[in-house]
Amino acid sequence: MASATATPDTLPAWQTLTQHAQALKHVHLKNLFGDDPGRWQQFTRQVAGLTLDLSKQRWDDDTLEHLLALAEEAGVPGAIQALLSGKRVNVSENRPALHTALRLPADAHLEVEGEDIVGAVHDSLAQMEQLVQRLHAGQWRGATGKPIRHVVNLGVGGSDLGPLMVTHALADYRPSDIHPVEVHFASTMDGSQLADYLSRFNPENTLFVLSSKSFTTIDTLSNANTARDWLIGRLTQHADLPEASPHAKPISAELIVRQHFIGVSASPEKMSEWGITPDHQLMFWEWVGGRYSLWGTIGLPIALVIGMENFRELLAGAHAMDSHFRDAPLDDNLPVLLGLAGIWNVNFLDIRAHSILPYDGRLEYFAAYLEQLEMESNGKSVTRQGQAVNYSTCPVLWGQLGPNAQHAFYQLLHQGTQPVVCDFIAPLKRYDEVENPDTRRHLKAQHRLALANCFAQSRVLMLGDDALDEDGPRPEHKRYRGNQPSSTVLLDKLTPATLGSLIALYEHKVFVQAVIWDINPFDQWGVELGKQIATDTQAIIDGEGDLNRMDASSRGLIEAFWAAEQE
Amino acid sequence: MASATATPDTLPAWQTLTQHAQALKHVHLKNLFGDDPGRWQQFTRQVAGLTLDLSKQRWDDDTLEHLLALAEEAGVPGAIQALLSGKRVNVSENRPALHTALRLPADAHLEVEGEDIVGAVHDSLAQMEQLVQRLHAGQWRGATGKPIRHVVNLGVGGSDLGPLMVTHALADYRPSDIHPVEVHFASTMDGSQLADYLSRFNPENTLFVLSSKSFTTIDTLSNANTARDWLIGRLTQHADLPEASPHAKPISAELIVRQHFIGVSASPEKMSEWGITPDHQLMFWEWVGGRYSLWGTIGLPIALVIGMENFRELLAGAHAMDSHFRDAPLDDNLPVLLGLAGIWNVNFLDIRAHSILPYDGRLEYFAAYLEQLEMESNGKSVTRQGQAVNYSTCPVLWGQLGPNAQHAFYQLLHQGTQPVVCDFIAPLKRYDEVENPDTRRHLKAQHRLALANCFAQSRVLMLGDDALDEDGPRPEHKRYRGNQPSSTVLLDKLTPATLGSLIALYEHKVFVQAVIWDINPFDQWGVELGKQIATDTQAIIDGEGDLNRMDASSRGLIEAFWAAEQE
Repeated sequence: MASATATPDTLPAWQTLTQHAQALKHVHLKNLFGDDPGRWQQFTRQVAGLTLDLSKQRWDDDTLEHLLALAEEAGVPGAIQALLSGKRVNVSENRPALHTALRLPADAHLEVEGEDIVGAVHDSLAQMEQLVQRLHAGQWRGATGKPIRHVVNLGVGGSDLGPLMVTHALADYRPSDIHPVEVHFASTMDGSQLADYLSRFNPENTLFVLSSKSFTTIDTLSNANTARDWLIGRLTQHADLPEASPHAKPISAELIVRQHFIGVSASPEKMSEWGITPDHQLMFWEWVGGRYSLWGTIGLPIALVIGMENFRELLAGAHAMDSHFRDAPLDDNLPVLLGLAGIWNVNFLDIRAHSILPYDGRLEYFAAYLEQLEMESNGKSVTRQGQAVNYSTCPVLWGQLGPNAQHAFYQLLHQGTQPVVCDFIAPLKRYDEVENPDTRRHLKAQHRLALANCFAQSRVLMLGDDALDEDGPRPEHKRYRGNQPSSTVLLDKLTPATLGSLIALYEHKVFVQAVIWDINPFDQWGVELGKQIATDTQAIIDGEGDLNRMDASSRGLIEAFWAAEQE
Repeated sequence: MASATATPDTLPAWQTLTQHAQALKHVHLKNLFGDDPGRWQQFTRQVAGLTLDLSKQRWDDDTLEHLLALAEEAGVPGAIQALLSGKRVNVSENRPALHTALRLPADAHLEVEGEDIVGAVHDSLAQMEQLVQRLHAGQWRGATGKPIRHVVNLGVGGSDLGPLMVTHALADYRPSDIHPVEVHFASTMDGSQLADYLSRFNPENTLFVLSSKSFTTIDTLSNANTARDWLIGRLTQHADLPEASPHAKPISAELIVRQHFIGVSASPEKMSEWGITPDHQLMFWEWVGGRYSLWGTIGLPIALVIGMENFRELLAGAHAMDSHFRDAPLDDNLPVLLGLAGIWNVNFLDIRAHSILPYDGRLEYFAAYLEQLEMESNGKSVTRQGQAVNYSTCPVLWGQLGPNAQHAFYQLLHQGTQPVVCDFIAPLKRYDEVENPDTRRHLKAQHRLALANCFAQSRVLMLGDDALDEDGPRPEHKRYRGNQPSSTVLLDKLTPATLGSLIALYEHKVFVQAVIWDINPFDQWGVELGKQIATDTQAIIDGEGDLNRMDASSRGLIEAFWAAEQE
């Protein structure tokens, strides 16, 4: 890591890169390609079922050399070892960031502050496995004796986006020989998704997973309270139930909470206080950040959808990327190279927008997942030594399924005025398992169509008009500048293992960038003040605070709400 | 509109604004607020069930005055009349843009190039109503005689995002007294969503809506072909059906296509050619752009979910905004004011990222909808006279449900290095219709919580640390700069009518900005080249083209695919 006084922009390699960028800024990406047949080999790497093509970045050999020097000068190699060995890399909260420990194999050892934590990690996986097996065997019964059919995950942020993204991506990996359990997600504090579920589900066979690291997240707790009262209201008024027996005994609220809630948190006290029975509490650790937590007990919904065996494959894939990240030299290291491409774009080419474009509908939530991972981790402007930075850090990330975005915002990528860098993501093989041969043939053709579009779009973004073999001028409104850089990540196939590697690739990319920017990617102080002011604001809305302390806009908004309530 | 030679940056008001921005750039938003109790009144307007609060923009009276002068100089008033009266405002395609005509009341008149089009618009609504009523009465039967239960909309871009967004937002408005019809969406060319439906639905009671303006959209047609072969394969092999009678007659492919497909397109010839029977063809017009098309027959899925009466309310709400847009003076005109705020941010404060943050889970797809509406319309860099612009046009837009984004990317809004402008959107009243009193009380509290968060976040973004009554310094990593501008749009309540006004507000905002930037918001030439190159690329992937014509990266990607296929 950079020394206590040197910010990255004072490092020699940063200076060199600034100079170098002056020259390269005026070179069109198509000219970097030229007729160089070696550019693909030179800028492409393969590991853990992934192929990363960085040849369409606006850089050359020299750029990469200077960037690798920057990584060395900023202390990336030492930082990688510090992260993976459990040093207190989260400086503002004075603790390690050990999501990688959650995917260590059972026979590994990792001593953190004097204690080997691998055993505890596998114990918690085993406890999770027990709950999963009870549900998959149809042995978990609700308060009236019915096997659980619907599981609703109540969580937000890291307790929602990771499980949501992965369960959607790997839905094809559902085990076939289990009691059917459908997994749903309710995250929004306004109760929207929850209200819909409550109007459709039978409380007798519905179980809620209350997922919150601190167990104080108001979004999740307010959904949980609404769900609890719904269960108690419906199940104690037994006569209302569709299949109630006239001889049924009254059911206690305590029994209902015990049988219809699982808690996942780092705070067993708070779980118990809320009423979650100790047997139904899954723990996780303070040293796992919310946005890095899908690998442990927060991943319960994932294990419920794909089964524990596939869940362990997901961990193994991520672990393969961890090992690569630890062992590969910088110039062969996928997360390092992907991170450096980002540094080059943000800090030297002034490209402040980054689009994530998967060409596979199963990755529908991948962009939303990365938005949190990257912007919450690296949306910072203070160095680890508490100094305000004077260079850009995290760009704005957004995305959408690539084929759909072609019909939505690609117009701006091709002909707008904003420079944007894109990540194209696609699996090479797909649909081999579809049973019906005609449907399989059709779907495989659709997959080839999607790949053709994926490859074509990055080509057009790079070349612009030159993608066409065409003579003569085009009218100005049909012209394409090109010169928009991109990366392409290919998965051999979308499996639990390759998805694990893909997520870990981005986690480590974010870390590499944080090291170079000299910021702490593991805290999120920027969300604290909003929570506090929201509590104050709610008090005022509820008539318990002083409206006159507020600014004119807040006063106007609150008065508009009061007026609407009077109608 | 600007004269043929003057680009907007040469207009006097643009010059004045450039000067003015030099001074205002250094004024913190909190100081603009100061103790001015009048700022809310001054910058807030109400119309058609919406309240627009622009007081948290980084502007003052003078700014607005100069911006209004810019609107005059750029010819906004004349452009509004040209748009609404059916002039050929889409210059590159030489036709009008008449989405506003789709929501004219039946007794209105609008003569476009010699013909009154209102009658034809209402005829097409009546035709749509007939189909909706047949489905809602359970009278539309599949080839084996079963009433249709599942309707799958096959469409992408404008034929997907609008209907998807609105059906999700207004799901509470389902009529209760109809034959149940569930509406689903399959858009992605890779077949992902479709493959899932085909594995779950019964072909006997599933109907597909094939929605494509040109009827050449390969994404949609490839999904349609897969669906057609699935229906024919499953329904002609009658013995496979779960409830097939042993005496059933064989069913022809023709009958299947007739009974299981509705077409929505501007090309009846192509629909007939594909096999859609004329009775099941819904038309729309060349002068309606895809991203502006939910108001007509492309809105069929909306009408299927909320019923025709509510669909007409949606149109009436949009029409109310159209009338306001036409009649209100510029300084009282919501779309004009919202558009000017954007111009100020992009062109004078250099804020190139714009976040859309609804505080209501029902608006889950609203950000994705606006991404298309704004970036496809205004992601342009050539004036209407064919000159390359030398100022920024459309910023990057992205968004997420606000409460969820608080746990995802708000960190970057509060403490990152990128300036971002935000639109907060929320309904004032909610959950009054929930039947169970306990659940209603809980959900109304959740709504108040969401509003408190909405109001608090825009306050913290504005004030930064000053939102706290706190003495003494804070550590640097707990500091908040503030000074991020925002708009707040309040809906009295989320209804078909207010949603209609809200969408129309943004449509017209986009138009106002296009007029000032002197670009054409109604074409999308930037997506054409990609389609062409994708076709070439697919030929090469399929072995029918010359790989050596490609750049090294495209070659490498295609060879990686071939290698995977060989495994």
